[in-house]
Amino acid sequence: MRKEDMILVSIDDHFIEPPDMWKNHVPARWQGEVPRVVRNAEGVDQWVFQGQATSTPFGMAATVGWPSDQWGFNPGSYSELRPGCFDVHERVRDMNANGVLASLNFPTMAGWNARTFAEGEDKELGLVMLRGYNDWVLDEWCAAYPGRFIPLGLVPMWDVGLAAEEVHRIGRKGCRSVSFLETPHVQGYPSFLSGYWDPMLKALCDEDMVLSLHIGAGFDVIRRPAEASVDHLMVLACQISAITAQDLLFGPTLRRFPGLKVALSEGGIGWIPFYFDRIDRHYSNQSWLHHEDGFGGRLPSEVFKEHILACYITDPSGLELRHRIGVENIAWECDYPHTDTTWPESPEFAWKEFQDAGCTDAEIHKITWENACRFYGWDPFAHTPREQATVGALRAQAADVDTTRMPKEEWRRRNEAAGIGLFEGMR
Amino acid sequence: MRKEDMILVSIDDHFIEPPDMWKNHVPARWQGEVPRVVRNAEGVDQWVFQGQATSTPFGMAATVGWPSDQWGFNPGSYSELRPGCFDVHERVRDMNANGVLASLNFPTMAGWNARTFAEGEDKELGLVMLRGYNDWVLDEWCAAYPGRFIPLGLVPMWDVGLAAEEVHRIGRKGCRSVSFLETPHVQGYPSFLSGYWDPMLKALCDEDMVLSLHIGAGFDVIRRPAEASVDHLMVLACQISAITAQDLLFGPTLRRFPGLKVALSEGGIGWIPFYFDRIDRHYSNQSWLHHEDGFGGRLPSEVFKEHILACYITDPSGLELRHRIGVENIAWECDYPHTDTTWPESPEFAWKEFQDAGCTDAEIHKITWENACRFYGWDPFAHTPREQATVGALRAQAADVDTTRMPKEEWRRRNEAAGIGLFEGMR
Repeated sequence: MRKEDMILVSIDDHFIEPPDMWKNHVPARWQGEVPRVVRNAEGVDQWVFQGQATSTPFGMAATVGWPSDQWGFNPGSYSELRPGCFDVHERVRDMNANGVLASLNFPTMAGWNARTFAEGEDKELGLVMLRGYNDWVLDEWCAAYPGRFIPLGLVPMWDVGLAAEEVHRIGRKGCRSVSFLETPHVQGYPSFLSGYWDPMLKALCDEDMVLSLHIGAGFDVIRRPAEASVDHLMVLACQISAITAQDLLFGPTLRRFPGLKVALSEGGIGWIPFYFDRIDRHYSNQSWLHHEDGFGGRLPSEVFKEHILACYITDPSGLELRHRIGVENIAWECDYPHTDTTWPESPEFAWKEFQDAGCTDAEIHKITWENACRFYGWDPFAHTPREQATVGALRAQAADVDTTRMPKEEWRRRNEAAGIGLFEGMR
Repeated sequence: MRKEDMILVSIDDHFIEPPDMWKNHVPARWQGEVPRVVRNAEGVDQWVFQGQATSTPFGMAATVGWPSDQWGFNPGSYSELRPGCFDVHERVRDMNANGVLASLNFPTMAGWNARTFAEGEDKELGLVMLRGYNDWVLDEWCAAYPGRFIPLGLVPMWDVGLAAEEVHRIGRKGCRSVSFLETPHVQGYPSFLSGYWDPMLKALCDEDMVLSLHIGAGFDVIRRPAEASVDHLMVLACQISAITAQDLLFGPTLRRFPGLKVALSEGGIGWIPFYFDRIDRHYSNQSWLHHEDGFGGRLPSEVFKEHILACYITDPSGLELRHRIGVENIAWECDYPHTDTTWPESPEFAWKEFQDAGCTDAEIHKITWENACRFYGWDPFAHTPREQATVGALRAQAADVDTTRMPKEEWRRRNEAAGIGLFEGMR
């Protein structure tokens, strides 16, 4: 097996929602109230919903086209971005250039948990837009290139009954997962342990869909010192996946829903062997704590393995200990267009780590596509013959894709000259 | 090398302070105000200081003698405990039975950070008792068996100037370390990042003493769900050591004090390779964050290794990845008399993990005593010839030590019959 023979399915990427996304997915009577992007005098594009400026979807969320000295939290404009961030046709070209067969995309403007719709005052309007978002994901973004995207939807967190309904609705349309908060109690919602979310979890099991819990949502679970720099957030984000696993495993959410599948998106994998050592030793050593609420004769690590997909971008130590994690439980990610992405050298990056860790061909296939496809219930070859799904075959289609990083100003100049990033009604 | 040839120096054990500890270490005029233990009608022993009941030092803190079905948070009495918890002569016998040459003991009643003295209203009185505590540690507990204990003191957190003074005072008396809070900001104190603690950190560097940060102090750094069971605390405690390391490393406390040495006591080691992968990738990938506040041309993991001793009781995954942690940075712990201790089978437990991980003899020596002794600046053979310091030699002296676990009630019966655990003035 060579690097070019790998098949890459990434279950953690992101899009920057385009301003015209609701055009075809919200009934006419609501069209006047869909979220809009307004470009201000400084050239910054700003989403506005229900009269409130909600977010500017740029800065750190879409750095893929820029040199790293331009990364930061400054707001910006669509025309400064690499078009693959918001344009599905350009995205597929960028995937080809990186040898990536398929991708699951998390929201940006909407928030991991549909925050933008949940926080608006008018919840009826929020639900219309949330459903419009999901329909855009399914019927427009993913439908544009069958076989290239694993659909991920959102649920209305403000009402668990509606959330369960929405799971069923999008499940029937072929959606494979929903994004949710990793530590909902930190944002003022009931915790996973509370039982409040059970109807939604049941719906996910019924539809055989995955609960995708992306890092970042739970930053505030750690009480950071006031003086802490942004490094704290970026470094410690993955430690929070262990906290989430603990909530689910000892909650005991996972034991109440034998069919529940949870992806710890971007959570990393290297913390897991240590966590397994700890929970299994704890379980046997502190047996006095588990008289009534047992793990059914299994070790906590075994229950974890039955339910959780551990996801990583780069993780040399975790790969070295893959036998302790369970090679069936590991899935690779690309993270386009965030700062941590390995695009456009993902095949080189992943391949080197596999070789350094001594992975076999079979292990590489499990980690790069087999585990993700099994877990998300998604057939990678339904639309793409296997021989056309490889890194080598996809890259061969992308010889004309320029992957050079360029300053924002240059992107703006080029994009605006070509009419890219300027949407109807933005001014 | 055989199991019996190991030399075990544990840098994490605990004593249950005996009620008469201030008798010889507080001037006569304060003797009427020293903390006292009162035994109530239910037979529970309770510390009282400045008119306030402060803590009952039992339950989970001293389970070493009991079967695990009696573990729990219930308060108890001295006479229910294995006497090695509070009696130095019995402790040394228990150490011999476990093949342990030397031990560093954390407080129980006083709290990791001398909480009991810090929380009292009268700070002058608190300081008298804190100094009395330190003098008892140095001049009584440790002095009773030269070469068997590495002295650990406390500092008055309510005044950093006094804390620095106390470091110098006990440093001159031969103390090798102080215990402190791993995340002081969570308890309402200034954070490590604030600079407030710098005079104390400078004093530690001047005295070449170690800052020992034991897990547990920072539990509340994680916002746990209201429904979380005690499993959360016990499992996640080690994740907090990563948070502490982040505070110190990016603070940038460690870089301002090139001589500062920090032990992450009971923090475990298996999280470190993942943390190193993360911080080193972050540092190189997010170079835009580090223009002014660099690591001096080194990787963050290299700075960690220069300052931090990583400590563990049982850690199969961490040992397997010791080459990624740095075998010079790992130290073994016993944790007598807590629930997580491996006493009295520590040699068997540690030896099996070393064998499973394929450790060489040289690596075993580093992990079991060399690293700890170098780090704490403590010569293990000053009072004990090396050939008498081994597991085999020490155990040979302890043939008469009964290590059987017995119910509390049996301990009480036996101890009280022998006059053990009943101190002057307790009733």
